[in-house]
Amino acid sequence: MRSKLIHDQQGERTFAVVFDRGEEVLAGLREFGREANLTAARFTAIGAFSDVLLGFFDPERKEYDQIPLREQAEVLSLIGNVAQHQGKPKVHVHVVVGKRDGTAHGGHLLEAHVRPTLEVMVVEAPGHLQRTTDEETGLALLSPK
Amino acid sequence: MRSKLIHDQQGERTFAVVFDRGEEVLAGLREFGREANLTAARFTAIGAFSDVLLGFFDPERKEYDQIPLREQAEVLSLIGNVAQHQGKPKVHVHVVVGKRDGTAHGGHLLEAHVRPTLEVMVVEAPGHLQRTTDEETGLALLSPK
Amino acid sequence: MRSKLIHDQQGERTFAVVFDRGEEVLAGLREFGREANLTAARFTAIGAFSDVLLGFFDPERKEYDQIPLREQAEVLSLIGNVAQHQGKPKVHVHVVVGKRDGTAHGGHLLEAHVRPTLEVMVVEAPGHLQRTTDEETGLALLSPK
Repeated sequence: MRSKLIHDQQGERTFAVVFDRGEEVLAGLREFGREANLTAARFTAIGAFSDVLLGFFDPERKEYDQIPLREQAEVLSLIGNVAQHQGKPKVHVHVVVGKRDGTAHGGHLLEAHVRPTLEVMVVEAPGHLQRTTDEETGLALLSPK
Repeated sequence: MRSKLIHDQQGERTFAVVFDRGEEVLAGLREFGREANLTAARFTAIGAFSDVLLGFFDPERKEYDQIPLREQAEVLSLIGNVAQHQGKPKVHVHVVVGKRDGTAHGGHLLEAHVRPTLEVMVVEAPGHLQRTTDEETGLALLSPK
Repeated sequence: MRSKLIHDQQGERTFAVVFDRGEEVLAGLREFGREANLTAARFTAIGAFSDVLLGFFDPERKEYDQIPLREQAEVLSLIGNVAQHQGKPKVHVHVVVGKRDGTAHGGHLLEAHVRPTLEVMVVEAPGHLQRTTDEETGLALLSPK
């Protein structure tokens, strides 16, 4: 994972973050969030994965079903944000991938390995965003107060 | 729907807008557009819906076909903008959702209810964008002049 | 293709770029990149295509498989960036489209014609991003150094 600050202005920072072959995306984004001290960021990305583990939140069971895709796939859209939860940056990512036949699949991102590249554009606002644990679902939901 | 201004700089404002369970998304975005007086905004979002009504624009009939999905789905990508049309903020949104089996579906957003959350990042530019009614299609198209 | 600068502040510029019926998207984005002298930009878009040619990168063959979709489709998500490669702006775009039945498809964007509109929001950072040719894949990968 390599990054470059391409804009910095009164506390708003824009970064290009590039992942290389074999790197795991969620771990890398968390690492970048700590290094860059992100407290209220959003990002988008495109690229490709060698494999990905998708999640589907079951509101009855209050857990994520796991959907593994063990094949090369284009990353058609990766959208996410970073907020603070219990004093640490928490990364939330959803992804759409495209298989070899052009069909699209996706879910909550649980794990993914890059091949050959993933190009992420991150914008960090100077404000703060917090997540708090929701009693009903057990999820750490964004709390914009 | 709760919102927080996380950046404000020479007229460019960034908001985090969070929808809660049961809230309808288009009505909420229109309400936020009026409250925040949006004239040229863009946004992205992730989250989940309990149900969604998708549209597909048929260029022959010049109308939207309606595609209802009456099941829980992850919001993999929600991209849209706000411009002025006939003096009011008009919201335009397209969405990709993921079903329990990981397949992706989507269309022009006509209606959707949130479960458990939808996290929207809105950036408002200080400029103005107008929509004007297109004679050929009857649609209110963006007119960047 | 028509464009409007909706924000300009210390070198960061935001444009709305609108494509009209029949225009080819990649050629138009390259033309806009040259005209606006983009060196480190990101963009998102929604709209619709009359036809699109998708690519899927085969890491073994090191080439893109071509997946043609010769039918009207909603552009559910179009995400991309512009960097410099060999002294010229290079545009990289991935797209998710929705067919009449609501199913989503997508890939690396090779070619697409607009019907009736495509609404692109472009943000140009004052920094520079370079692509360099990767020996292993032959691709021009983003090099954030």
